[in-house]
Amino acid sequence: MIYLDNAATSKPDVECLKVAEQYLTDKFYNPSALYAEGYNLHREITKIRSNILNLIANDRDFQLIFTSCGTEADNQAIFCGGKRGNVVTTYGEHSAVFSAVNELKERGIEVRFAALNSDGSVNVENLLNLIDSNTSLVSVIHVNNETGAVNDVNAIAKAVKMKNSRTLFHSDGVQAFGKIPFKIGKDIDLYSISSHKIGALKGTGALIKRKNLVIKPYIYGGGQEDGLRSGTENVFGIKMLELAALKRYGVLNENYNRVRQLKEKMIQNLDSGLFTVLSPENGSPYILTVVADGVRGEIILHEVNDKGLIIGTGSACSSNDKKRYSRVILSCGIDEAKADGVLRLSFCPETTLEEVVKAAGILNATVKRRREIME
Amino acid sequence: MIYLDNAATSKPDVECLKVAEQYLTDKFYNPSALYAEGYNLHREITKIRSNILNLIANDRDFQLIFTSCGTEADNQAIFCGGKRGNVVTTYGEHSAVFSAVNELKERGIEVRFAALNSDGSVNVENLLNLIDSNTSLVSVIHVNNETGAVNDVNAIAKAVKMKNSRTLFHSDGVQAFGKIPFKIGKDIDLYSISSHKIGALKGTGALIKRKNLVIKPYIYGGGQEDGLRSGTENVFGIKMLELAALKRYGVLNENYNRVRQLKEKMIQNLDSGLFTVLSPENGSPYILTVVADGVRGEIILHEVNDKGLIIGTGSACSSNDKKRYSRVILSCGIDEAKADGVLRLSFCPETTLEEVVKAAGILNATVKRRREIME
Repeated sequence: MIYLDNAATSKPDVECLKVAEQYLTDKFYNPSALYAEGYNLHREITKIRSNILNLIANDRDFQLIFTSCGTEADNQAIFCGGKRGNVVTTYGEHSAVFSAVNELKERGIEVRFAALNSDGSVNVENLLNLIDSNTSLVSVIHVNNETGAVNDVNAIAKAVKMKNSRTLFHSDGVQAFGKIPFKIGKDIDLYSISSHKIGALKGTGALIKRKNLVIKPYIYGGGQEDGLRSGTENVFGIKMLELAALKRYGVLNENYNRVRQLKEKMIQNLDSGLFTVLSPENGSPYILTVVADGVRGEIILHEVNDKGLIIGTGSACSSNDKKRYSRVILSCGIDEAKADGVLRLSFCPETTLEEVVKAAGILNATVKRRREIME
Repeated sequence: MIYLDNAATSKPDVECLKVAEQYLTDKFYNPSALYAEGYNLHREITKIRSNILNLIANDRDFQLIFTSCGTEADNQAIFCGGKRGNVVTTYGEHSAVFSAVNELKERGIEVRFAALNSDGSVNVENLLNLIDSNTSLVSVIHVNNETGAVNDVNAIAKAVKMKNSRTLFHSDGVQAFGKIPFKIGKDIDLYSISSHKIGALKGTGALIKRKNLVIKPYIYGGGQEDGLRSGTENVFGIKMLELAALKRYGVLNENYNRVRQLKEKMIQNLDSGLFTVLSPENGSPYILTVVADGVRGEIILHEVNDKGLIIGTGSACSSNDKKRYSRVILSCGIDEAKADGVLRLSFCPETTLEEVVKAAGILNATVKRRREIME
C-alpha cells in the first residue's frame, strides 16, 4: 500500500516508539505525584517542553503548553484570545479554527473573514483592511492543509501589529511544524502544533504562547502545564512528540528538498491532460493538491484505494460535515465542477520516488478510465 | 517497589498493550478518512464506544463521547451544562470540577457548595436544600478521590430531579469506573470516566451523556464524536480504554472483594496508635486514607519512598496548587494538624496481600521513628 495521505495523519515512527515505550511501562507514574518517580517525570517533561520549543522558537520569550491535539490548541487560542470586539481570520482555516470562530459568532463576537488567493493563501491586503481598533485576535493558518500554500505569518503578524498593536496574533502551524524551515517571530503571540502529522501520536499537541502573554486556561482542574492546561500529562505522547520533532528538525532541510523532488516528480508524471495542479509552486512540498478534471474525487479515492494507493480529497477533518465541496477550495475561486475533482496527495520523508512514480501511474490510469466511462 | 498510588494513575496493562499496539503501527490511519483503512477504524471506534458504554449504562439511552481525559469530560459537563442560574456542587469534588465551577463563578454564574460528612461523602440534605428553580446543573463526585467515600449518585440524582426536574445531573465517575459495581440510572444526565486509573492510558477519557440531552461541544473543529468533540481520534488510547475496561468489568466483583480484603488487611496491620483511619468502612475498597497522627504526610511519603513504597498524600492533581492542606480533607471537618498527616493508600487488582503487609510494616516503622525524633 502506497500511503499519500500524510497530511491527514502519519505513521508513528518505529524508532521513536522503541524509546518512548518505557513511559508505558517502567515510567508510568503521575508527574504531579510528590515521590521521586513522579517528580522525575515532571522534570523530564520540563526538559522535553524546552527541547521542543527551541526547535521553533526560543524558551526565553516563549512557553509551550501541552494539549491533547492541535484542535484543542486552536480552541484555546481562539476562545481565550478572542474575548471582545471583533476577530479576524481567513476562509482558509482548518475546521479547528473555522468552527471555533463560528462558535464565537454565536456568542456575540463579530468575526471577519479575509478572502483567499487562488492558491489558498490569504489575501493579505484584504486581511489588513478588516483589522481595526476593536480587533482582539487575528488567526491565520501557516500552511494551508488543503492546498499547501504557505502564509508568511511572521510578516503578516508584523503588519497586523502595525495596524493594531494590541491585537493578538495566532497561527495554526499544524502542517508547518517539522516540515517547513521557520522560527516563530516576535509578533506572533500564539502558535498551534500537532504530534500525529510528523510521526508522533494522535492525542498530543501543543499551544506555544509568548511568555509574557496572559491567557486563561481552556481546561480547568489540577493546574498542570503551569495552570494553563489541566489533566494528567500524557507522558508517552509528550515523549513521542519530542523524539519525532527532534528527528524531523535534525534533517529538516534535507527532508524539505527531498520531498520537493517528490512533489515535482509527481507533477511531471501526472498526465496534464487529466489533472490540473492547484497547489502553488512555492507552497509546502508536503502537500500537492490537484483537480482530476471532470470526475469526482471521492470516486477516484476509492478506485485507487482498491489498487493499493491511499490519497485524500482534502481535509480528513472535513469529512464529518458531509458537505460535498470543500469550503477552502471554493474560497480559492474554484467552481463546483472542479472542486468535485480535488485530490490531495501528501508526502512524508519516507515516501520514495518509486512510490510517487507508481502512484502517478495508478492515478493516470484510473482517471483516464473513469473519463472514458463517462463519455 | 510497592506501588500504592493507583488512584493517581495505574500501570498500563501489558496484555492490553500487546493487543492495542497494532493501532500504533498497521492501523495508524485517520478514522475520518474516506478510504477503507480510515473508514474501518471509524467503524471499530463505533463498536468500541458501544462496548464501553454497555459496561456501565446502555447504548439505547446513553451516548459516549471520547475525550482526552476525565478532566476534559468534567469541563465539558460543567461549562456546557452550567449555562444559567445557579450550579450546585460539593466541597468534595476533584479539582477538575472544583476549578471549573470556580471559573463559572468568575463568569457570573452563582455556584453553591454542599457540605461534606466526616468521611468525605456529601451531606445530601444540605445539597438538596441548595437546589431551587434556577439550578441548571448539579455535579456530585461518585467516589471521592481523597477518602474513597461513595456517594449514591443514582439516589441523589433522583432526589435532585424531584426538587427540580429541569436540572441536569452530572457525576465525576473517574474513581468508580472499573472498580465499583454500578450502572448509570435514568436520572443521571452526564457521567465522566478516565482511562489511566484502570490500566489504560493517560490521554483518554470519556463523557457519557443521556442520548436525548442536547449539549454543545467543548472542543470545536472537524466534527468528530458526532460533532461533540473534535480532534483526530486517539485510536490507540481508545482501544486501550476498551480492553482495560472489558478486562476489569469481566471480574469486577471478584476484584472488588479481593481489594476489600487488601484494605481490611492494611487497616489491621497499621498500628492503631500511630494511624487513624479516615476512609469509611463502606467506601471504595480501592482507596484507604489514614492520618499519621502528629507527623507531616509529605515527609512520610518521601521516607517510605526511600524504603521502596510509593503512596500518596491526597490527590496528585492537587499538588500543583502548592496548598499545604487538602481542601477536601478540611471540608470533612478534620483540623489542620491532622490534615497535615493525611496519607492515601490506593490499590489495584494486582496488589498482593504480601505487599500490603510489607507496606504496613514500612509505614509503622517510619511513622514511629519520625514521632520519636519529634518527641
